[in-house]
Amino acid sequence: MINVCLLGTGGMLPLPDRALTSLYVEYSGKAVLVDCGEGTQVAVRRAGLKLSKIEAVFITHAHADHIAGLPGLLLSVGNCSRTRPLGIYVADTAADAVRAVISICDNLPYDIEYHIFPHDAAQSFSLDSVDTRLTVDTIVLSHRVDCVGYSFSLSLRAEFLPGKARALDVPVSMWRELHEGGTVTLENGTVISSADVTGELRPPIKITYITDTLPIDAIAEFAYGSELFVCEGMYGRTEKKPSMNEKKHMLMQDACALAEKAKVKRLWLTHYSPAEKDPSVYEDELKRIFSGVVISSDGMKLSI
Amino acid sequence: MINVCLLGTGGMLPLPDRALTSLYVEYSGKAVLVDCGEGTQVAVRRAGLKLSKIEAVFITHAHADHIAGLPGLLLSVGNCSRTRPLGIYVADTAADAVRAVISICDNLPYDIEYHIFPHDAAQSFSLDSVDTRLTVDTIVLSHRVDCVGYSFSLSLRAEFLPGKARALDVPVSMWRELHEGGTVTLENGTVISSADVTGELRPPIKITYITDTLPIDAIAEFAYGSELFVCEGMYGRTEKKPSMNEKKHMLMQDACALAEKAKVKRLWLTHYSPAEKDPSVYEDELKRIFSGVVISSDGMKLSI
Repeated sequence: MINVCLLGTGGMLPLPDRALTSLYVEYSGKAVLVDCGEGTQVAVRRAGLKLSKIEAVFITHAHADHIAGLPGLLLSVGNCSRTRPLGIYVADTAADAVRAVISICDNLPYDIEYHIFPHDAAQSFSLDSVDTRLTVDTIVLSHRVDCVGYSFSLSLRAEFLPGKARALDVPVSMWRELHEGGTVTLENGTVISSADVTGELRPPIKITYITDTLPIDAIAEFAYGSELFVCEGMYGRTEKKPSMNEKKHMLMQDACALAEKAKVKRLWLTHYSPAEKDPSVYEDELKRIFSGVVISSDGMKLSI
Repeated sequence: MINVCLLGTGGMLPLPDRALTSLYVEYSGKAVLVDCGEGTQVAVRRAGLKLSKIEAVFITHAHADHIAGLPGLLLSVGNCSRTRPLGIYVADTAADAVRAVISICDNLPYDIEYHIFPHDAAQSFSLDSVDTRLTVDTIVLSHRVDCVGYSFSLSLRAEFLPGKARALDVPVSMWRELHEGGTVTLENGTVISSADVTGELRPPIKITYITDTLPIDAIAEFAYGSELFVCEGMYGRTEKKPSMNEKKHMLMQDACALAEKAKVKRLWLTHYSPAEKDPSVYEDELKRIFSGVVISSDGMKLSI
């Protein structure tokens, strides 16, 4: 299972009633965070989530509304008695800005492990747990500065079936090895493989996070089949299209068109302009483009 | 008149219901800010105040809870169509950290004017307006890193008395010169000085801001006679004294003792530890030390 919380839905600057866009993805008792603007640590607390679970932070780009909350968050994580390292995934051209804001964090009681990757080529990372594998893929986006999107695919191991294991006389001490995909040999010489005692393979759960970009075609392919597609929609007013082209952002309508093309299950709009006080006024219009659109609000949660 | 707003009352980290400590001081249509932790720009909006009025930010020290909000605040000030420079007052040993966090602010439409002063000697600055002079003094504090306190003294010109001016046949065109302290010569040769047409000199209004320090004796002298003394009080539990000595902070009781000694009119406690959920439980005890103590809450305002 994967638990997702959209910590904030704002773009550009935090408002009293709207935090900056950031996604908290929890799986197997751990969490990763995507982006960390000013106030993200407060939004984590407000949502009742734990800073201590965060294993890694993925950064889309070096604008302040996506990274300025890092020093506060890292210091607060340090106050949770953490000693194990925390990963920061960031493209090479955004790394200096991240290092600059973090430079004010003296004496963190744990190490930062930087995973710095080329900004201009798709990447794939793997974060393993005992019973799951989280694969993180990147896409090169089109913004005023180098920017990447992320997809998170959680692969669940096939369900372990104790009945089958007992029927084959597999001792309990060997169950874990089999559940994790291994092979065991019983005392009588019989070889048992994982497939003998587990159910059907389950398709990975995919979540895609795209913000601060023109609505380039490649996004639809990248997000294809996502259970959840989190995507920016700065404005619902279509007269803002020329301004969005210039600033390299997209409209809510653009995000809906991408979602329809990508055959995602649901689209959560986010990164609203501060000038869009009530994005829900566009709901009817947007549902005609993509029926699975959700006008997200801060702290929205989903378990898949 | 001077309008003061304590934007937040927290120390260490921002909480959902408690912003970090920062003071907004408004005078003659302008404002200065003291400290700018994560979320201060949101607290300015929440208090209904204007980012556009901020002429200068005064930094006490380089810890994240006092400077990490600078990039977001400066960018949002830039979104207010500002072109005139904004001043940042900071001690030399804290300047690099301030520059590092600000380095992520690309393309600000105005200049930052750094006023970098020695960390180990008291300073005095003067910010003039048409009808007022704001004198800002610093005190060297005792914290884990170099830290300074500030006092703001607003000098008001003596009240202009139109009745006296008319009785002396001073034409209206000369009133402003006299109000600003000048001397004029009438057509008949009579010399009129400012004192002839203005009321009594008014004592300056003094506000003192002290946070992140041991309760050193020098603070009482520095804050002497303040209309408002804003001072940290991390804890009201006196058993925290050894820990406060070690971390170089003070208790609420220490702040009250300083306020009593400094004969200030009122003390606003601030910079509460996140562990102090309800500082008002100490109110009775604290009032026995200094009757003018106020257990501040976020957004508290005062006009003097």
